[in-house]
Amino acid sequence: MEKKRISGRVLYGADYNPEQWPEEIVEEDIRLMKEAGVNTVTLNVFGWGTIQPAEDVYDFSGLDRTFDLLEREDIGVVLATPTAAPPSWMFAKDATLLRVDENGRRVAHWSRQAYCPNHPLYRKEIRRIAGKLAERYGKRSNLLLWHINNECIVHCYCDYCAEAFREWLKAEYGTLERLNDCWQLRQWSLTKTDWAQIAPPLGGMSHTSVSLDYQRFLSDSNLEGFLAEKEEIVRISPDVPVTTNFYSIDFLGQIHPRWAQHLDVISWDSYPPHKDHGVWAAFQHDYFRGLKKAPFLLMEQASSNVNWKPYNPAKRPGMMRLQSFQALARGAESILFFQFRQSRGGVEKYHSSLVSHGTESDNRVFREISGLGRELEKLGGVLRGQTRARTAVLFDLTLLWLVGWNRTSRDVDYREAVTAFYRPLYEANVPVDVVHPLDDLSGYDVVVAPMLYMFEEGVPDRLRAYVERGGKLVMSYNSGMANGCDVVEHGGFLRPIADVFGIVVEEADALEPDMSNRVKWTDGACAGSGDRPDGYRTGKWGEVVRLEGAEAIATFEEDYYAGSPAVTRNRYGKGEAYYVAAHPEPAFIRELLLEVCQSAGVGPLVPNAPHGVEIAARETDDRLFLFLMNHRSSSVEIDLALLSAGAWTDAIRGTPVTGKIALDAYDVLVLEKPIRE
Amino acid sequence: MEKKRISGRVLYGADYNPEQWPEEIVEEDIRLMKEAGVNTVTLNVFGWGTIQPAEDVYDFSGLDRTFDLLEREDIGVVLATPTAAPPSWMFAKDATLLRVDENGRRVAHWSRQAYCPNHPLYRKEIRRIAGKLAERYGKRSNLLLWHINNECIVHCYCDYCAEAFREWLKAEYGTLERLNDCWQLRQWSLTKTDWAQIAPPLGGMSHTSVSLDYQRFLSDSNLEGFLAEKEEIVRISPDVPVTTNFYSIDFLGQIHPRWAQHLDVISWDSYPPHKDHGVWAAFQHDYFRGLKKAPFLLMEQASSNVNWKPYNPAKRPGMMRLQSFQALARGAESILFFQFRQSRGGVEKYHSSLVSHGTESDNRVFREISGLGRELEKLGGVLRGQTRARTAVLFDLTLLWLVGWNRTSRDVDYREAVTAFYRPLYEANVPVDVVHPLDDLSGYDVVVAPMLYMFEEGVPDRLRAYVERGGKLVMSYNSGMANGCDVVEHGGFLRPIADVFGIVVEEADALEPDMSNRVKWTDGACAGSGDRPDGYRTGKWGEVVRLEGAEAIATFEEDYYAGSPAVTRNRYGKGEAYYVAAHPEPAFIRELLLEVCQSAGVGPLVPNAPHGVEIAARETDDRLFLFLMNHRSSSVEIDLALLSAGAWTDAIRGTPVTGKIALDAYDVLVLEKPIRE
Amino acid sequence: MEKKRISGRVLYGADYNPEQWPEEIVEEDIRLMKEAGVNTVTLNVFGWGTIQPAEDVYDFSGLDRTFDLLEREDIGVVLATPTAAPPSWMFAKDATLLRVDENGRRVAHWSRQAYCPNHPLYRKEIRRIAGKLAERYGKRSNLLLWHINNECIVHCYCDYCAEAFREWLKAEYGTLERLNDCWQLRQWSLTKTDWAQIAPPLGGMSHTSVSLDYQRFLSDSNLEGFLAEKEEIVRISPDVPVTTNFYSIDFLGQIHPRWAQHLDVISWDSYPPHKDHGVWAAFQHDYFRGLKKAPFLLMEQASSNVNWKPYNPAKRPGMMRLQSFQALARGAESILFFQFRQSRGGVEKYHSSLVSHGTESDNRVFREISGLGRELEKLGGVLRGQTRARTAVLFDLTLLWLVGWNRTSRDVDYREAVTAFYRPLYEANVPVDVVHPLDDLSGYDVVVAPMLYMFEEGVPDRLRAYVERGGKLVMSYNSGMANGCDVVEHGGFLRPIADVFGIVVEEADALEPDMSNRVKWTDGACAGSGDRPDGYRTGKWGEVVRLEGAEAIATFEEDYYAGSPAVTRNRYGKGEAYYVAAHPEPAFIRELLLEVCQSAGVGPLVPNAPHGVEIAARETDDRLFLFLMNHRSSSVEIDLALLSAGAWTDAIRGTPVTGKIALDAYDVLVLEKPIRE
Repeated sequence: MEKKRISGRVLYGADYNPEQWPEEIVEEDIRLMKEAGVNTVTLNVFGWGTIQPAEDVYDFSGLDRTFDLLEREDIGVVLATPTAAPPSWMFAKDATLLRVDENGRRVAHWSRQAYCPNHPLYRKEIRRIAGKLAERYGKRSNLLLWHINNECIVHCYCDYCAEAFREWLKAEYGTLERLNDCWQLRQWSLTKTDWAQIAPPLGGMSHTSVSLDYQRFLSDSNLEGFLAEKEEIVRISPDVPVTTNFYSIDFLGQIHPRWAQHLDVISWDSYPPHKDHGVWAAFQHDYFRGLKKAPFLLMEQASSNVNWKPYNPAKRPGMMRLQSFQALARGAESILFFQFRQSRGGVEKYHSSLVSHGTESDNRVFREISGLGRELEKLGGVLRGQTRARTAVLFDLTLLWLVGWNRTSRDVDYREAVTAFYRPLYEANVPVDVVHPLDDLSGYDVVVAPMLYMFEEGVPDRLRAYVERGGKLVMSYNSGMANGCDVVEHGGFLRPIADVFGIVVEEADALEPDMSNRVKWTDGACAGSGDRPDGYRTGKWGEVVRLEGAEAIATFEEDYYAGSPAVTRNRYGKGEAYYVAAHPEPAFIRELLLEVCQSAGVGPLVPNAPHGVEIAARETDDRLFLFLMNHRSSSVEIDLALLSAGAWTDAIRGTPVTGKIALDAYDVLVLEKPIRE
Repeated sequence: MEKKRISGRVLYGADYNPEQWPEEIVEEDIRLMKEAGVNTVTLNVFGWGTIQPAEDVYDFSGLDRTFDLLEREDIGVVLATPTAAPPSWMFAKDATLLRVDENGRRVAHWSRQAYCPNHPLYRKEIRRIAGKLAERYGKRSNLLLWHINNECIVHCYCDYCAEAFREWLKAEYGTLERLNDCWQLRQWSLTKTDWAQIAPPLGGMSHTSVSLDYQRFLSDSNLEGFLAEKEEIVRISPDVPVTTNFYSIDFLGQIHPRWAQHLDVISWDSYPPHKDHGVWAAFQHDYFRGLKKAPFLLMEQASSNVNWKPYNPAKRPGMMRLQSFQALARGAESILFFQFRQSRGGVEKYHSSLVSHGTESDNRVFREISGLGRELEKLGGVLRGQTRARTAVLFDLTLLWLVGWNRTSRDVDYREAVTAFYRPLYEANVPVDVVHPLDDLSGYDVVVAPMLYMFEEGVPDRLRAYVERGGKLVMSYNSGMANGCDVVEHGGFLRPIADVFGIVVEEADALEPDMSNRVKWTDGACAGSGDRPDGYRTGKWGEVVRLEGAEAIATFEEDYYAGSPAVTRNRYGKGEAYYVAAHPEPAFIRELLLEVCQSAGVGPLVPNAPHGVEIAARETDDRLFLFLMNHRSSSVEIDLALLSAGAWTDAIRGTPVTGKIALDAYDVLVLEKPIRE
Repeated sequence: MEKKRISGRVLYGADYNPEQWPEEIVEEDIRLMKEAGVNTVTLNVFGWGTIQPAEDVYDFSGLDRTFDLLEREDIGVVLATPTAAPPSWMFAKDATLLRVDENGRRVAHWSRQAYCPNHPLYRKEIRRIAGKLAERYGKRSNLLLWHINNECIVHCYCDYCAEAFREWLKAEYGTLERLNDCWQLRQWSLTKTDWAQIAPPLGGMSHTSVSLDYQRFLSDSNLEGFLAEKEEIVRISPDVPVTTNFYSIDFLGQIHPRWAQHLDVISWDSYPPHKDHGVWAAFQHDYFRGLKKAPFLLMEQASSNVNWKPYNPAKRPGMMRLQSFQALARGAESILFFQFRQSRGGVEKYHSSLVSHGTESDNRVFREISGLGRELEKLGGVLRGQTRARTAVLFDLTLLWLVGWNRTSRDVDYREAVTAFYRPLYEANVPVDVVHPLDDLSGYDVVVAPMLYMFEEGVPDRLRAYVERGGKLVMSYNSGMANGCDVVEHGGFLRPIADVFGIVVEEADALEPDMSNRVKWTDGACAGSGDRPDGYRTGKWGEVVRLEGAEAIATFEEDYYAGSPAVTRNRYGKGEAYYVAAHPEPAFIRELLLEVCQSAGVGPLVPNAPHGVEIAARETDDRLFLFLMNHRSSSVEIDLALLSAGAWTDAIRGTPVTGKIALDAYDVLVLEKPIRE
């Protein structure tokens, strides 16, 4: 974040919606905030109906008062524009403002984000309200950040969107001829002879190219709303940074790389699964940090359970704290929650909060919140600390759509494929950046590209150059199938860089659930990893690969491609390119990746750390922070002698630490030491 | 039933639709009715198109003739208004009469109940046809009962309904301010500033408060149709009782407590599952009887299989008879079937009947029907017999919606929770009334309130008073979360009567399927129940409870709330309140409930009866009837010495019974003895 | 095929769509065709937008050129009318041309078959384009066949269809009175008093009679389009045969017996499952051959995987060849593929082809294609060879809808029931015709009628006459329930021919998944089959049957119908009728059917052939061809002494064969010998 506001302390707090409560509650709430160590609240996220109760009526009295009281208590404000939830009068003014869903049905106004993002009335009103807010609050001393909209994903298929989609396509493709060609519309006589023939893909995916571009268009449509609001704000309040909080990757809609440059700071909302939460949360921290290769804000998380998953267990004692430190360890500058006071009605009333319906602050969760608040006060030194990773995992979230639409096996899943390759690095505490395939890769020694189904324009060149200059690239099956329009290029899979891998992929075989194969290291391959079993199961997918210069370091052992390469390695330029033509069990992937890392001189942050202990580092100009996080439900002993040499201090307690220390279940230790410049 | 018509004999018969058959079939059918012991038929349920073939054309000739023939044979008539299925000409006159489904699609007219219940044309025509029927048949000597509409559940989301919904809300809430507040519409800026902004919740549940009220509104909309018809009928035919047949609870739509006062007698349609049919049928008999605390009519059941469940086995020999006696034992005054003659076309043609497609009366089912008819002729004495229960189970069927919408675990299910607490009482033959939480509880010694998620206005006061005056109350988890608008009150769960329980619920924990806990009685607790295992598994849900005056009689043994209370007991006033913070296995619930009953002096009808033998009693002014029903697929011996003393007679055979008797698989014994006044 | 064109060589090739590729690719493709042995391609299947780019603009230059080049190389052309995919300008001209789906939603134009088949604009334009094509290409020397539309199934529910449906019904039923009666519309007051009251059954099945007729109407609507095109073609090009390629039975829509008479030759597209592909492909070959009791064309199959099944494994080496020979063995005159060159975009880009994206012809699949091409060149002698079957399996594909709609058990499935009775005949290599129940049965000794749920008008008489004249008929449960309108006739199941079976079906019992029964042969029954186990499991369904002249040859052994007949046999006239009242395990059905065949003197083509070896025969005027196909994944030895006597030659290699020969995994041997006339 280049702009000045956020600094000095880890932001700690929550969304706060006093407009949903009697006026007198604010003072009590501020007392509770102080008790919990809250130094930041996000206001006005859904307050549009309160501050603009009718088209030409504004009422800022409540917001003014809250601002004043917070300022008095030195609590910072993240000020949201309330544009995720237009008020009822606006829908009443023009019923076409209600969005039309994928099945062509106009929604009723009983929820947030019921609007069409391309509607002219919406675009006009969001500018107006953003401007009003900027004028009124843009100079407040405790204003830390602008927060535009909220989890800004709206899918709409109305006539306004249809028209905007056509304009978007004109800008993207220029001519209909080019569009017809890029999308291969001669198939099935879909060739368009007039732009007006193009309609949104109502009724679900029926043609992958149009569906893909419609998703890009929708993301851009939402982004245009963001930019419109930002323009109004920056005009008046240029010194305050601007963000919008991204939803977690579980919810598709925003294509973050198209947004990132327009945000002063990335912020996102983390709602990991209960089981196995560590790896998926870590992945997303590494991803959202990777968007700008910079620290980010954790804008929302839950103090305990959420209410919208199939099952919603309470976070066990210590888990919320563990997850908070995990965020901090991986680049967060804030630990913020949804929400301060639990709502009483609607569909979110059983989502946990800082202050609960029942016992308010007299409960375990609030006590853990307060304890964490006190700890974070000691950790301001971590801020602006960078993560230094020599390994990157490539991730293109549009593949969450595309692989699903194109999968020739129900069991092929992009998220699972990426996680399978991210997990061994995470578990071994190898620092990783998760980055887009078009990002600059020159700083990495190892790049892992699991199931890079789509080679968007520029990607093959970038990968080729990366290997040529000495990088190690590991790519897995179902990669390089299609170009950026989801069309296969002449020459087929991997072709633009098949020579980098030194192979030809001849066939792809999508296995039925009761089919499988076995893979085995060839003699001498992956030798660094000790005793080997006689093979590893692999399922779901296999490819028949022909060597054209590469060597096989593992082979299939069964079925008609027994003996053919399962993993290949090819020297290219100064680097090496690996290809994994199978979906093997975790142990195999772990051995492969750790071997590749080792050969590149890339190792774990702390060698031989106990299993289940996550370790991450942040480095400021003069200090190194090391986070040791025990994900086990039992205690574990760690020998600090494993750490790099230096005078390690417990960053929270301020005391020197040496020797062996025990970490309780879910406990965390933050260490720091000075760095010699 | 206060009105005079139904008396003297158990009504036995079926829906009869001669308008679907050639005229000459009626005489043959009446011969078969006599053979089967049928004394009652329900006419005209779907006959609108026959008696009013065009807007201004009536033709009652067929119905007249059927009435005459039945009268001659002393067969009573339940006369239905045919308003569940308006004829095609009416939909042709105004296509907006076709209802609009939850997804906004106007249905095609290929099924019954295709109409909008709020449509002015419908309202006008149902009054007209009801009046015509009352004029023509209201004085017939064999007219026993009016039967308005049929399973009167129609869900519609059209513009007429939208307008009627707004009027309904105005009547309910008075002002928009109050509505906004009650529904907490400030969240997400949903605040309505004009009534016209309110639309039906198309597209499924998106806001629980509006969806809940929409269901209440729909139930009332259907009820208004019923009342309109009733008004026309009572004006002309005031001495004949009026009912409408409720669907089983498996189908949501009618909120029975809002209807019950308007029916002269409750009637319902019982289609229990094949497996485990006893408990769910018994529950519903106890529920429908509980609506007026009076005997009821079994208006429909199947002679053998139905056709619309996922699997539809034939009722095994004896099962239909067993289920019929079960109804009688629990308060029925009639055993009626859908339908007399099996239909030839459409979607109900494979639903069983009295007279089948194929072998007509020459088959097992008809023989069982005839046998039962002869037995029931002996049981007129049972009529008006009351059920005397000192135990009540509270049941609010709106929770079948609400708990589903709000569940934070896919496995939390209101019906299952209620059944779990009803079952041990059923299996132990403890007489139970199933009543609404707002009913008068003063007559009960034990009240069980499983998962009473919603505390509607008045409920907490009623429960408090009940315990205060000496009652024993057992409530289970996920109770008292929300008020009658599904909004959490300040203070949270159980709060208005948390002091009655002497506890605070601090957290609710919705477990994933592979998570569980263990509960254990504390020393000395539940001592009356003999040897205890070391604990009982519990899953799905657990609550962290803090004692504030209560004692823990069972505790959790695992996870982070090990040691905290799983079941609490609190003395309050002259009574006791129990709270069950877990979902334990059946044995645990059984031990708890039987212990509570015992401590209240409430016991089974017959102690130590063999497992699988259901026992129920009905008491008239001078006689006690006891029904012994063997649900096992093998025979069982019962020692009549276990019964209360007295001169027991076999009520069907009229012979005295003593000693040990054997009951065959699925067999039933009805005993009676005189009561000394 | 009576018309002259197709003869002399097995047609070998694929759909070919050069309009999707740069012009210069055609010459390279023709080179590859020659390499692969391709002698036939299907052109123009989706080329409408190319040859008629605007309403009044035609451009045949590309198609002319392709035709010329193919002619020069002696490659025949199957010329398609492109009417499965109207071009965009046509939808732009009239948006009501877009079809309306079952839920009432008008589709967007992003896929093929987006049109309404009853739309006047469509009907006009298909005549125009068909005429143009006939004029231009009808006299080309290498034109082999006209191919109208493609997998011609379009389901539409628009207003044009509604009006056409009413006209169709008028033609079918004459009067509304008759319609009301046939559909039993008095139920639920559905009686129609004006044709205008009839609308398509939007929203899924709600009344079986209307839904069934709507499917017949849709099939006829598509057929009318076919006939309109055919009329234009035949007028100009009378000597070239005409077909349309039927989809496999997995996709419902076309009711083939209503189409067959209008096709000069049957053609169909075979996409069998990966597992157990043999039996389902064989069944369909026998079915499509049975439509005209004549050889047919295999118009499409995949060279390896498809892309649209839940899982899409590659065809293992040899499998494509095996499946091709299976088609030939069972009556095919062609082996054609979809498609020649793999498409680059859209939803079919990962469907296999002859020439692949990646390695073009340098891969296993192309090598297998080429090998097969060379073999087929030797097999021209097979053409016009007939299949001689003395056994028929009755199959009415409308039951795939009807049984589904009416099933009283989720597990009752028509396709599974039919396969269960077809499989033992297939596995024993007994030649079978699969025919419609209204077909001429006089040539068969054994007729098997699995689950013949519907007795359309004429079927009972035909079956009665068949048995009377000496045939053996085996019918299984859930048969004869309804007439051709899905209405039960007075008298019920089987009744019109219950006397032929000598039984009465008293009850049908649809079992839950954990219920089952046991069946056992009665003493002496099925004696020819050696040692018997003590019984066979049976599930899903059981019927309680009463003998009225028949004898029980197997009985149920459990539950309340223990001892009652499970299989009955009745002599009637000169024949015998068997009824199977259960769904027993495969071994039982096999024993039954082989016993019945044996008693009729019907045996396998080759007795005692090894399990897993499929054997089929084709007979021309002077030669007998025998196909031995090893479906096992390991090799098998076959003793040619088992074959009928004669001088057998390997039809591909032209060498005599005797003694024992080994067939490799998936390998095929084609033998021939002369027949003495």
